[in-house]
Amino acid sequence: MAESMRSSRGPSLTPQLWERFLGGERRACAQVITKVENDPDAVPEIRDRLSGRLGRAIRIGITGPPGVGKSTLTSALARGLADGGNRVGIVAVDPSSPFTGGAFMGDRIRMDALVGDDRVFMRSLASRAGQGGLAPSTAGVADVLEAFGMDRILIETVGVGQAELDVMACADIVVLVLQPSTGDAIQSLKSGIIEAADVVVVNKADLPGVEMLLQSLRFAFSLGAGRPGTNATPILATSAQASEGIGELVAELESQASDLVDSGRHREMRRARLENEIRRAIQTHLWASLERAVGASAKIRRHAEELTLSGGSPYPFIRRACAATQVCQTKEEAWQ
Amino acid sequence: MAESMRSSRGPSLTPQLWERFLGGERRACAQVITKVENDPDAVPEIRDRLSGRLGRAIRIGITGPPGVGKSTLTSALARGLADGGNRVGIVAVDPSSPFTGGAFMGDRIRMDALVGDDRVFMRSLASRAGQGGLAPSTAGVADVLEAFGMDRILIETVGVGQAELDVMACADIVVLVLQPSTGDAIQSLKSGIIEAADVVVVNKADLPGVEMLLQSLRFAFSLGAGRPGTNATPILATSAQASEGIGELVAELESQASDLVDSGRHREMRRARLENEIRRAIQTHLWASLERAVGASAKIRRHAEELTLSGGSPYPFIRRACAATQVCQTKEEAWQ
Repeated sequence: MAESMRSSRGPSLTPQLWERFLGGERRACAQVITKVENDPDAVPEIRDRLSGRLGRAIRIGITGPPGVGKSTLTSALARGLADGGNRVGIVAVDPSSPFTGGAFMGDRIRMDALVGDDRVFMRSLASRAGQGGLAPSTAGVADVLEAFGMDRILIETVGVGQAELDVMACADIVVLVLQPSTGDAIQSLKSGIIEAADVVVVNKADLPGVEMLLQSLRFAFSLGAGRPGTNATPILATSAQASEGIGELVAELESQASDLVDSGRHREMRRARLENEIRRAIQTHLWASLERAVGASAKIRRHAEELTLSGGSPYPFIRRACAATQVCQTKEEAWQ
Repeated sequence: MAESMRSSRGPSLTPQLWERFLGGERRACAQVITKVENDPDAVPEIRDRLSGRLGRAIRIGITGPPGVGKSTLTSALARGLADGGNRVGIVAVDPSSPFTGGAFMGDRIRMDALVGDDRVFMRSLASRAGQGGLAPSTAGVADVLEAFGMDRILIETVGVGQAELDVMACADIVVLVLQPSTGDAIQSLKSGIIEAADVVVVNKADLPGVEMLLQSLRFAFSLGAGRPGTNATPILATSAQASEGIGELVAELESQASDLVDSGRHREMRRARLENEIRRAIQTHLWASLERAVGASAKIRRHAEELTLSGGSPYPFIRRACAATQVCQTKEEAWQ
């Protein structure tokens, strides 16, 4: 861990860059985000600097299948939240398409229309996630936006697979966006993302089939789909392009945000995420330390191959390896 | 780990018990299973004894929502497989209802009708899973049945949640059982278990609505539900009570079993499971060793609580803790 803590690409943040960031210069914010996105080794140092400026913003995940109009909805939502007095950050996470190309170009241009709005800061993350994976990078970028002064951070992902679920783990509120079409609902149910949804939005509500989708969703929720322990996941209909239903969605999100803060759940979610972050970092360190000490993965694989052929028990090896391997602490006070 | 390797409940297997087990005495098999189920500490020793007798049997998971007739189907399937020349073990895993009570009593009695059949050995696992959890215990019981000489092991679970998915991870072939009803299909899609299914069975095919369910399933599969990379998950209709469609299901399972063995995938799955088992055991040992050395979990939790209040960075603690913590190997040769 000690090694990986040092950036391999020179100083992460010059004092000048940090001053400009604190001064609210948007270009400096973009530069810090680039660091976070491209240089995982720089993250710990940047995280140190951001400390003391985090804990207040509400992070809103926006997810759903491609083509349902998430980008347009995100733009409309950002404007609605800004009109309510918020500074709004947007992180658009697209694991499949790079920012500059493909079918989403049109969406991106619509979102870029917001960039002239000083109350909104938009950043698109490209697919080539750093060694830390997409999710940690997204959380890090959200941290930068929050430290830059954003009150609400919208995190938009494309798709409904495991990667999107991981990204959504860093959101305080998750909005699942669907459009009238059975396939969307089935895919969402399948991926388990409906269990993570705090609000379901049926977008493009002017298309035919909206009533059938609303009914299917209510049926699924009545059967126990949705967040465990709740049975009142709100289902809203919007038409982002026509700006219909956006006010209601903003009101719902702001109401959930107040509840999260007032009930202490916002702080509790932050604590749990922090605890996971620390545990994962230490587990990663332990395994890396074991790899350095004995080349564990290769040896485990070799033993598994041999045992598969011989039909032997794995426990002689497990016992031997565990008995000879322990965690040593060099400084008692380090864990205090 | 060294400590937990020793049984806290006396010798796990007496030489007498082991002799009776090897001699094919059914009561001895039941006693060894009880050890595995109730005393996780005894598992390593038992696993050692079973070694050399494993690797040949095919494990078939049977899962689906409650009430679709899985137990009756399992009984019919066991008889069908036995008629084909197999010795058949059954592990019925029911996290919600104990063996002796509740609404499933009728099913259990039907299954018990098989116990007179020397070619079939049935064991029901109660809900109170040992400290190792339900899934490891199930895999361990399947090991005992395989070492006892069973060629096919049917693992029946009730429900379609994460627990069932974990249990199904130890199966070579997974059968998802549904009955004509939209709710079942939605729940299965939601839980992700349809992605683990190698065969989908629509049971109670004499009920109305079977054609609609078959159509919905084909539609879902055409949208990419089902095992990634395949688009030909077979969908069969059965009526276990009337013994209809059982022959086709047996033929499909035996065909998949042959393919698994011939293609080397059966061995490859066993290797991957063994590798995971070893890695998890060593990771558990490492974390336990860290707990003993520094009381890691409590300290991480305390730091996360403080940082949530202070808004500080977790990295000073992560850096300090990692720098002072490493894996020490006492015997070079232990990992060879």
